[in-house]
Amino acid sequence: MRMESKLINMGKQQNFKVGELMPGLSVDNVIFGFHDNQLKVLLLECMNHRDWMLPGGFVLKSESTDAAAERVLYDRTGLNNVYLQQFHVFGDPSRSRDSLMSSAMKSMELPFETDNWFKQRFVTIGYYALVEFEKVVPVPDSISASCAWHDTDKLPRLIFDHKDIIANALTSMRHHLNYQPIGYNLLPKEFTMKNLQSIYETILNRKLDRSNFTRKMLAAGILDKKEKLFAGGAHKAPYLYSFKKKEYLKVLKDGFNNEF
Amino acid sequence: MRMESKLINMGKQQNFKVGELMPGLSVDNVIFGFHDNQLKVLLLECMNHRDWMLPGGFVLKSESTDAAAERVLYDRTGLNNVYLQQFHVFGDPSRSRDSLMSSAMKSMELPFETDNWFKQRFVTIGYYALVEFEKVVPVPDSISASCAWHDTDKLPRLIFDHKDIIANALTSMRHHLNYQPIGYNLLPKEFTMKNLQSIYETILNRKLDRSNFTRKMLAAGILDKKEKLFAGGAHKAPYLYSFKKKEYLKVLKDGFNNEF
Repeated sequence: MRMESKLINMGKQQNFKVGELMPGLSVDNVIFGFHDNQLKVLLLECMNHRDWMLPGGFVLKSESTDAAAERVLYDRTGLNNVYLQQFHVFGDPSRSRDSLMSSAMKSMELPFETDNWFKQRFVTIGYYALVEFEKVVPVPDSISASCAWHDTDKLPRLIFDHKDIIANALTSMRHHLNYQPIGYNLLPKEFTMKNLQSIYETILNRKLDRSNFTRKMLAAGILDKKEKLFAGGAHKAPYLYSFKKKEYLKVLKDGFNNEF
Repeated sequence: MRMESKLINMGKQQNFKVGELMPGLSVDNVIFGFHDNQLKVLLLECMNHRDWMLPGGFVLKSESTDAAAERVLYDRTGLNNVYLQQFHVFGDPSRSRDSLMSSAMKSMELPFETDNWFKQRFVTIGYYALVEFEKVVPVPDSISASCAWHDTDKLPRLIFDHKDIIANALTSMRHHLNYQPIGYNLLPKEFTMKNLQSIYETILNRKLDRSNFTRKMLAAGILDKKEKLFAGGAHKAPYLYSFKKKEYLKVLKDGFNNEF
């Protein structure tokens, strides 16, 4: 078991022994940000300055897969307190075939030997999150050249099947909008219904009917409607809303009782 | 590596060597059936005639996780040609703790030794399917006493975290209804809108608005409206519909363009 004593570089924070890790299992995080009505994704630049990758890593035998996704995200980008949502397992054996592994290792400028830990087949669990773009200052780990936001519709060259993973995360996030609220960390404390709708429209990449959107949002019971402060000409000003934090978190956990 | 030569009983069809399997990874299938307006789940009875379990098993190093779920379902219940949908990964280390493993092995009347394959931590990938109850004649494998349908709201005692897995599958299936059609294998060739709505209502466990449901279903473009054959008193008879197979399968794959 000479692999047991090998150290695996897990990013900037820690190295782990192979024996401490779940074999053949990894996590990959797709971090979406919202800026200027554009959806972006956070990527790490490989050492070869050509290929990019998702901030991913391995699962310790002692931790849950959810905790692994959080730790890996922090170790590789410096981001923490991010609500990560598991969305899909990528379990095709061809995703870990030798040629892909070897080219990814080259991109990261890591050695790829015969008995390499990376040479086994990996099943990866995808997680995604939607974060507040402005508050995020990502910092790359020691095995990456840089860490940067990319428009989801103009992705650079990515290692492995990371392009497919991003596409799948985007589809999943769009589906999840049907039963999970978003916007809590993306909007100022008070916002208009139009502000909220524009986030949904950007993510869904299509226009929504205003009255239908307003009705569904209000029915979810997660919004507080604010009093208009000024009378007079102000009757034309839109209402301001804020999220009811407790109700929002409850709906995030339980799902909307969305009318079909 | 003496574990490598051990044979793992994978059900009625095959035994595999430990070295052929992905370590620490399993799949569990939640098979829902619909009968008499009641939602049911297919379970295997452990040899001790007291505990029940989901038809689950391991992943060969050479096969995709999706193919593993199909193979395992066939080997353990005799069911094939079932469209299995991955819904969640159960990756908490406590789900494979010794006491749970040992009690599950006892229920199956399998030995639980120190160096047992089953003693490692398992991350399991959950799959679900909704099948035509009447056409299913499940046959248990050699490590199970029987195979039977159980009402989802009256579950027997289950091993591991299988009760949680079923609850999670039910929630996922309810969410998926928002962007995936159902009913294709559950209804006769021609059916009324009321027939289809009643399937949705049973799964969602609540009443739906009829005109809203009809509007959404027709908008999806997966239904063929049949001519009424008789005039006269027949104006009170409901329209009959059938699924457009090609469109149905396309929507199943791509998702509804569901208006929020």
